Amino acid sequence: MASITIIDIAKMCGVGVTTVSRAINNHPDISEETKAMIMQVIKDNHYVPNNSARNLKRSASKTIAVLIKGITNPFFNRMIQVFEKEIQRKKYSFILQHVDENQDEIEVAIELEKEKRLKGIVFLGGNFSHSKEKLDQLTVPFVLSTIGMTPEYDPSEYSSVSVDDYKESYKMVDYLCNQGHRKIAIITASMDDVSIGKLRYEGYKQALEDHELPLNEKLVYSMKENIESYSMENGYAVTKELLDSGEEFTALFAVSDSLAVGACKAIFESGKSVPDDYSVAGFDGLDITYYYNPSITTIRQPVEEIAEETIRILFDLINKKITHAHKTFPAELMIRESTTARK
Amino acid sequence: MASITIIDIAKMCGVGVTTVSRAINNHPDISEETKAMIMQVIKDNHYVPNNSARNLKRSASKTIAVLIKGITNPFFNRMIQVFEKEIQRKKYSFILQHVDENQDEIEVAIELEKEKRLKGIVFLGGNFSHSKEKLDQLTVPFVLSTIGMTPEYDPSEYSSVSVDDYKESYKMVDYLCNQGHRKIAIITASMDDVSIGKLRYEGYKQALEDHELPLNEKLVYSMKENIESYSMENGYAVTKELLDSGEEFTALFAVSDSLAVGACKAIFESGKSVPDDYSVAGFDGLDITYYYNPSITTIRQPVEEIAEETIRILFDLINKKITHAHKTFPAELMIRESTTARK
Repeated sequence: MASITIIDIAKMCGVGVTTVSRAINNHPDISEETKAMIMQVIKDNHYVPNNSARNLKRSASKTIAVLIKGITNPFFNRMIQVFEKEIQRKKYSFILQHVDENQDEIEVAIELEKEKRLKGIVFLGGNFSHSKEKLDQLTVPFVLSTIGMTPEYDPSEYSSVSVDDYKESYKMVDYLCNQGHRKIAIITASMDDVSIGKLRYEGYKQALEDHELPLNEKLVYSMKENIESYSMENGYAVTKELLDSGEEFTALFAVSDSLAVGACKAIFESGKSVPDDYSVAGFDGLDITYYYNPSITTIRQPVEEIAEETIRILFDLINKKITHAHKTFPAELMIRESTTARK
Repeated sequence: MASITIIDIAKMCGVGVTTVSRAINNHPDISEETKAMIMQVIKDNHYVPNNSARNLKRSASKTIAVLIKGITNPFFNRMIQVFEKEIQRKKYSFILQHVDENQDEIEVAIELEKEKRLKGIVFLGGNFSHSKEKLDQLTVPFVLSTIGMTPEYDPSEYSSVSVDDYKESYKMVDYLCNQGHRKIAIITASMDDVSIGKLRYEGYKQALEDHELPLNEKLVYSMKENIESYSMENGYAVTKELLDSGEEFTALFAVSDSLAVGACKAIFESGKSVPDDYSVAGFDGLDITYYYNPSITTIRQPVEEIAEETIRILFDLINKKITHAHKTFPAELMIRESTTARK
């Protein structure tokens, strides 16, 4: 009999997975009201918690889960393709689990561990800010892929494969400064992000400082919370706001290519041109940056290599060959038509 | 002990999965040379055919496989997301299996059935041309998703969910004709394609005929075999050839949005403009068609609805509620900046 997962219940209730667990387990730390609502949804959907029988059966299969935030981001396509190939090559099953923006990927992973008896986990994309205590709740090996972590995390607590987001971002902004730009706007993650968004923002700040340019908060924009992050739609909405603000700038650095594409669209709609009125730069190296009009200056990440290394490290962890590992790949500054020397 | 699949062996050898099976099973219908090569690769990779023990264990897990051609096509992103959600909702495992252009998806599916004991299969994208005998080899329910089938197939032999590729393509070309275009080029699939490529090409031909326009073979281009089909890169390469041919045309209909984006890039590089020199239209309704410069006229497919219906039908088949089903969704003509009335 097919039944749904606790993750689905959480989504339906608009609460976290732990809240659902609390409701189920009569945990004191939850309001009667919320609990009643959740139990009703559970009842209505015939959800059966902890189906041990099924877990027992399923424990036979060896499964790797890839938890991905923002699956609609084309940046992940090639990576998923490589993950799939490498994981099946090892005769493991491959589960692709999408995690919503508002979901806690660790909670989702913990539930998946129970329900699917995972052997390993890949966390792909999104901002990743969890306490050591939280990470310790994961009982199977995991690797953070293309999720740069800020220094406050003890490197011995996790494994990761990515580019150096700080350094590559610095490289881009340094290039824009060298093109004579003095007023460079940025579209980055929300300020509480402690992952790639923060690292790329830090690289931006450092480059400005090294070129003795003041940081103008009015040119620092965070992606909109209510729109899929790192998306064209988000870059479009934020850039419209930036343009409407009237604050002067000559270059815009978006921390993802999709954001940059959306930014260009907003600029065109305002009757301005790229790069004559505004230089626009992205980050990632999506194919579209070459095919867009104008082609978009970006930082190209070696996605295949990153994906292959992610799986290599994950299986080294599973086979206890290593306790943790961190690999950083160099990325390439691709100078294209969307950026030019300041007129 | 992790070992690789027969599919990997086939890829390594650059042959089909059946050829590998033949080598393994001493089938007469294979050259000694090829057989020796394959057996060597099998030996080198320690591949163990028919590991019954593992199959027995794995038979416990309920798994749905989604076989996808061209996973890098953003058109599939939203669909995969929905498949994943719906399949996990049913407490089934979700296997994403990429099929290379040169691979026979039925062969891949048959091997997966054995190796993973599948409960159902979704074939997603790509051209799908297999004999009834071939389809009959599949022992589990399957649904063709966004794979329009040509009439020579007996509808009672399979299930499908898609738009009416013939009708929607006709709609687009009819619109271009009504814009005064008389010389309309098309980038479609190879002429031996009997799936969406052919259906969209037939719609193109019918629209021309109904507008009493001659079919000019010199304006009919097939995607390049050696480049990923329906990709920006393919559209770019083909359009370069079209432009170099010197054959006159005022509008170009590409049977996918990615092809259309590549086509625009080739036109820009030739110093021409879209739509002033050439109107360009695509098919699918990718987000990028809105954000591209100029925004691209396209046929928008209702991807979420198609994906949800695909899974609904697959489970109706699995639960023997139906023997087969075909659902066709209407698509929407989105008129944007890339097309204009003939000057």
